[in-house]
Amino acid sequence: MVSQQYATLNRTNDKMPLVGFGCWKVSQDEAENTIYNAIKNGYRLIDGAADYGNEVEVGRGINKAIKEGIVKREELFVVTKLWNTYHNKAQVRPAFEKQLKDLNLDYVDLYLIHFPVPLKHVDHATAYPPGWYQPGKEELEFEPSPMYECWREMEHLVDAKLARNIGVSNFNVQMILDLLTYAKIKPATLQVELHPYLQQKRLVEWVQKQGIQITAYSSFGPASFVDLTVDGKTASPLLEHDIIKEISQKHSKTAGQILLRWSIERNVAVIPKSTHEERIKSNLDLFSWSLDGEDMKKIESLDKRLRFNDPFSYGFGLPLFD
Amino acid sequence: MVSQQYATLNRTNDKMPLVGFGCWKVSQDEAENTIYNAIKNGYRLIDGAADYGNEVEVGRGINKAIKEGIVKREELFVVTKLWNTYHNKAQVRPAFEKQLKDLNLDYVDLYLIHFPVPLKHVDHATAYPPGWYQPGKEELEFEPSPMYECWREMEHLVDAKLARNIGVSNFNVQMILDLLTYAKIKPATLQVELHPYLQQKRLVEWVQKQGIQITAYSSFGPASFVDLTVDGKTASPLLEHDIIKEISQKHSKTAGQILLRWSIERNVAVIPKSTHEERIKSNLDLFSWSLDGEDMKKIESLDKRLRFNDPFSYGFGLPLFD
Repeated sequence: MVSQQYATLNRTNDKMPLVGFGCWKVSQDEAENTIYNAIKNGYRLIDGAADYGNEVEVGRGINKAIKEGIVKREELFVVTKLWNTYHNKAQVRPAFEKQLKDLNLDYVDLYLIHFPVPLKHVDHATAYPPGWYQPGKEELEFEPSPMYECWREMEHLVDAKLARNIGVSNFNVQMILDLLTYAKIKPATLQVELHPYLQQKRLVEWVQKQGIQITAYSSFGPASFVDLTVDGKTASPLLEHDIIKEISQKHSKTAGQILLRWSIERNVAVIPKSTHEERIKSNLDLFSWSLDGEDMKKIESLDKRLRFNDPFSYGFGLPLFD
Repeated sequence: MVSQQYATLNRTNDKMPLVGFGCWKVSQDEAENTIYNAIKNGYRLIDGAADYGNEVEVGRGINKAIKEGIVKREELFVVTKLWNTYHNKAQVRPAFEKQLKDLNLDYVDLYLIHFPVPLKHVDHATAYPPGWYQPGKEELEFEPSPMYECWREMEHLVDAKLARNIGVSNFNVQMILDLLTYAKIKPATLQVELHPYLQQKRLVEWVQKQGIQITAYSSFGPASFVDLTVDGKTASPLLEHDIIKEISQKHSKTAGQILLRWSIERNVAVIPKSTHEERIKSNLDLFSWSLDGEDMKKIESLDKRLRFNDPFSYGFGLPLFD
C-alpha cells in the first residue's frame, strides 16, 4: 500500500488524508467504477459535491468497496458540498439529507459550503443538481440567505452527528474573518483553487494560522478548464510547462506528481481526479520523495494570479473573487 | 463657482457631489483652515473618518464656513467612518455619537464602515483614535462582532436620523453579496482604493449594478504611500507617468486632474486632498472638459492590480483583499 499522510482537523482531531480523489467531471457512467477503483488503489478520501451530478454513483462505488471488505467506512474520509441553491436555513438540512441518501451513507466526514453565493432555491423535483441558473433562465438569481444563518444550519448537522466536520470552499479572507466572529464551530477546512499560476501565498498562510486546513482544487491549473473558459483554453498548460517538466525529470516523477507535491510541501491537501489507472496510482504516490527549496523557488516564479474557476469567466457576471 | 456633478444615492435620492475633499493626512494644525478653505473654494463634500484623528478640527472648519454664511449645512455633504474597534453592537452608537460631537454637527450625510475588520474595543479614554493595534501591542486583536450585527446598528443610526445614508469601505464582492442578504437598508456607497494601477473594473461594474455608488480613494496611486509602504516607495509615481503626462498636455490639465477625471468618466466619485490652494482649485475643476475613448484606453493599459492601502503591506499580517 502506498504511504499516506494526514492533516489533523481542528476540534475533532480527525485525520484527513492529504491526498484524496476528486469527483468533479467524473461522468455518471464511470463514477461507480472509478471511485471503487480509486479506493482499491489506496485512496481514502473521496471529494464530491451535489453539483457534480454523480453522488448516487459515487455512493455505489464507496459502498461496493466497503461491502467487498477493501475498506471499512471509518477508514474512509467522505467529503461533499452544499450547493448554492440550498443556503436558505430551511433548505440546508433537506439538501444534505438528499445527498446522504444519494450516497447511501449514514454520515459524511466533511461537509463544505461550495461557494459563498446564495442562489434562489430550486426544488429537487424541478432540477437536480440545478447548477447556477434557475431552469430556463440565463442570469443569476440571488436569494437573501445570510451566511450566518446558513452556517448555523451547517453546525446543526454536526450536532446531529450527520457531518463530523464542516468547512467552506471558495471563501476569501473577508468572508472567513466575518464567519469566525459568529461560528460556534470553526470551519475545519477551506477548499480553494491553487496551482502554480494561482499560488495565493498570503491567503494560504493566514488561513493556516487560523487553524483551518487548506485543500487545493484544480492542482493542474488550466487542464480542467480547456473546454470551459477562455483562460482555460489560452493559458499554456501547466503539465507541459518547461519548469515543471525540468523538475519532473530531475525527480523521475510525472508533471502531475510535481504539481501535487508542490501543494503537499505547503501543507495543503490535494484532490486529483483521473480515470487512467496509471495516473490514479501515481497521483497518490507523493510521500516517498519531496521537492527541494530550489524546486519550490522555481515554481514560485510561475505565479500569475490567474484563476480559472471563476463565476465571472463562465459568463455569470459575478466577480466573486474581486 | 466651479461646476459640480452629483450621484443620486439609492433610497434617499440624496445628491452626493462627485468631487469631495478628503481629510486623510490633513494634520490637526492645518485641518480647520484647510477644510474652511476647501468649502470657500467650492467643495461641498467633506470625507473624514474617526481614524484620521482630526474630526474636531474638521468640524471647526465646517462650522466656521457655515457661520460665515459661505454655505448652509444642508448644502454640505459630510461623510465620516466607523473605526474597526467599534464594530461591536454596543459600540457603534457611542462611537458615532463621539464623532458627531467632535464634528459639532447634528447629523452626517453618509456614515461608512471603514474596514470589514472587527478589532477589539479600545475605550475612548485610553486612546483616540486607537489605530489598528491595542495600546502597547504589536499584533492585531480581533473581536467576534459579526458584520450583520454591526450593520444593524448602522441602520439604527438612519432610523434615528443621525446618518442620512450608510455605506461601506474596503468591502469586497463576497462581503457585499452577504451584506445584501441581511441589509434592511442597502449600502448607499462603497469607498475603495481606485487608480490606474488598481482599476478593479469588474468590481466597479458589479457594485454599480447593485445600485451602490462608488467613491475612489487614493486617486493619485502611490503618492500617499511613499512614506507608508514598500510598494508606495518603489512604484513609479502615477502623477509623473508618461502616459498621464501626455494626456495632461493634450488637455492642458494637470496630471492630478487627469487621474481624477478618469474616475469621473467611470461614474465614480473622488475625494482628493491637497493643502495647496492651486491644487485645491484644480482638483475641483473636472466638469468643463472630459477624456476621450483613446485617453481611457491608454490609461486602461496601466492596470497592475497594485494595491497600496492594504493592512498586509503595513505589516499587520492580514491579507484583507486576498
